[in-house]
Amino acid sequence: MAEPIAFIDGEYIPANEAKIPILEPTFTKSDVVYDTISSTDDLIFRLDDHLDRFENSCQSMKISPPYDRNEIASILATCIDKTGYRDTCTTLMGTRGPYKDILSRDPRTCQNGLIAVSVPYYYVIPKDKAEQGVNLSIVENKRVPSESVDARVKNFNWMDLTRGLLEAYDKGGDSAILCTPDGKLSEGPGFNIWFSKDGELKTPKGNLLEGITRKTIFELATEMGIKATEIEVYPEDLRNADEAFTSTTAGAVASIIQIDGKPLGNGAPGILTGRINDLYWKKRKDGWHGTPVKSLLN
Amino acid sequence: MAEPIAFIDGEYIPANEAKIPILEPTFTKSDVVYDTISSTDDLIFRLDDHLDRFENSCQSMKISPPYDRNEIASILATCIDKTGYRDTCTTLMGTRGPYKDILSRDPRTCQNGLIAVSVPYYYVIPKDKAEQGVNLSIVENKRVPSESVDARVKNFNWMDLTRGLLEAYDKGGDSAILCTPDGKLSEGPGFNIWFSKDGELKTPKGNLLEGITRKTIFELATEMGIKATEIEVYPEDLRNADEAFTSTTAGAVASIIQIDGKPLGNGAPGILTGRINDLYWKKRKDGWHGTPVKSLLN
Repeated sequence: MAEPIAFIDGEYIPANEAKIPILEPTFTKSDVVYDTISSTDDLIFRLDDHLDRFENSCQSMKISPPYDRNEIASILATCIDKTGYRDTCTTLMGTRGPYKDILSRDPRTCQNGLIAVSVPYYYVIPKDKAEQGVNLSIVENKRVPSESVDARVKNFNWMDLTRGLLEAYDKGGDSAILCTPDGKLSEGPGFNIWFSKDGELKTPKGNLLEGITRKTIFELATEMGIKATEIEVYPEDLRNADEAFTSTTAGAVASIIQIDGKPLGNGAPGILTGRINDLYWKKRKDGWHGTPVKSLLN
Repeated sequence: MAEPIAFIDGEYIPANEAKIPILEPTFTKSDVVYDTISSTDDLIFRLDDHLDRFENSCQSMKISPPYDRNEIASILATCIDKTGYRDTCTTLMGTRGPYKDILSRDPRTCQNGLIAVSVPYYYVIPKDKAEQGVNLSIVENKRVPSESVDARVKNFNWMDLTRGLLEAYDKGGDSAILCTPDGKLSEGPGFNIWFSKDGELKTPKGNLLEGITRKTIFELATEMGIKATEIEVYPEDLRNADEAFTSTTAGAVASIIQIDGKPLGNGAPGILTGRINDLYWKKRKDGWHGTPVKSLLN
């Protein structure tokens, strides 16, 4: 039977048995970085891009997992392989690990670790919602600014995003879009934002996670002959767009059809959005940027 | 033999066996609030203040632990009692808990929980360092602003503080002081800041955890006939102070004798600082604001 699998403390175990000690700063200080990688049809998508970003995140927090890049790729593939699922999302975590003694609070004394966990491929925005289009709320709660925590260092410090999400639910939204403290659009909980205006694609720049799917959409736009740029975006720019969508590893593209309950564009999933999503999945099916899981197994 | 004890999943167990599932948003979104309460000589210090703050933190994040206030007080006391230590720090955590199903990302579907863990009383700034005085670095990394995450909601989203701490270590500091993005002094990783100038005590106002020990120092200052105020503070105000100290539940008062390696005041632990610390511990020994552990046991 297929089941989620974790690699933790050097062993592969069922993911629902994998746990973190409550006394570790990995938990009590959320002192951990991560990356989430998808595989479909046993092909890992953009492995090197994800490993590059994961290494950057680790370095930025001075976390040194006890495995090299090739070993991490092999652990990732082994987790996927052991699940029995053909389509997965796998999270790699670089953990601060336990303090040298229970009364210390010095992160330099910690033994850093690596955890990986593979689950069935999932959708940050549920698949049915993504297809019919979502209503996103531009919430009051602000995204943490880069000068406090660099969003490019992928981390579990999600309280601003969770607060934004809860605020969006209260307002009847399916999910949230957060702005930076200076009022620019940033991102939502687990996804980047895109919109088109007069046939050109735009996405917010700065103070956000630079998503691998976001990067992919720049490449798809080039292939489709569509101009795509990252710029400073304000809520009004999004509200006045012709169409808009979210991008993320877990679910790819989802149409945004309303902002704060008001129709965006014609209030239906956009044609350009659909073309991008179709091309994304067609190319993945053709093996684009794909690394076979089997090629990484020991 | 005395040992740290945790209450988790409704049971009391050795703390080093207490663990959080890696798939829970409690961990992967650091979706958890907490409070840390100290006990000395089997007296819990300012229990009601801590429970008030813990309840406020839970409410702010819409986390509803499955126990009422009296039950939580009893769990806290039972943890302390079972450790066998007379002086402890106990952390209460209100957890988001597991998603209803593994592919959901909706926090409203989660079963919220309560964890408590008692360890021997410890010092955020190690005791020997606290007595001889510490060198704190005012770091470049900024504290997360309140509009992103309200620091009064005590939480594990510590990445800004950890980044500040690592930066301070690099600069030769014993710990860090973080400023808000607009340049005002905020707090350090786990402590508030105080300083005196011309016989008056001052502490930063806004965008910080409103510590229970900070509150206590206001009361001690009144008793000592010293004027104490919370004001907007800039790095220069601290650098030009006569003396300065940190305040925290885990360790009470620690003298600051250097900022960025340069002497503060006369570069030795301050006389007023010492008087406040002595009065704090004398009054605690006399039972001030103390609730006997035994009075809360079932």
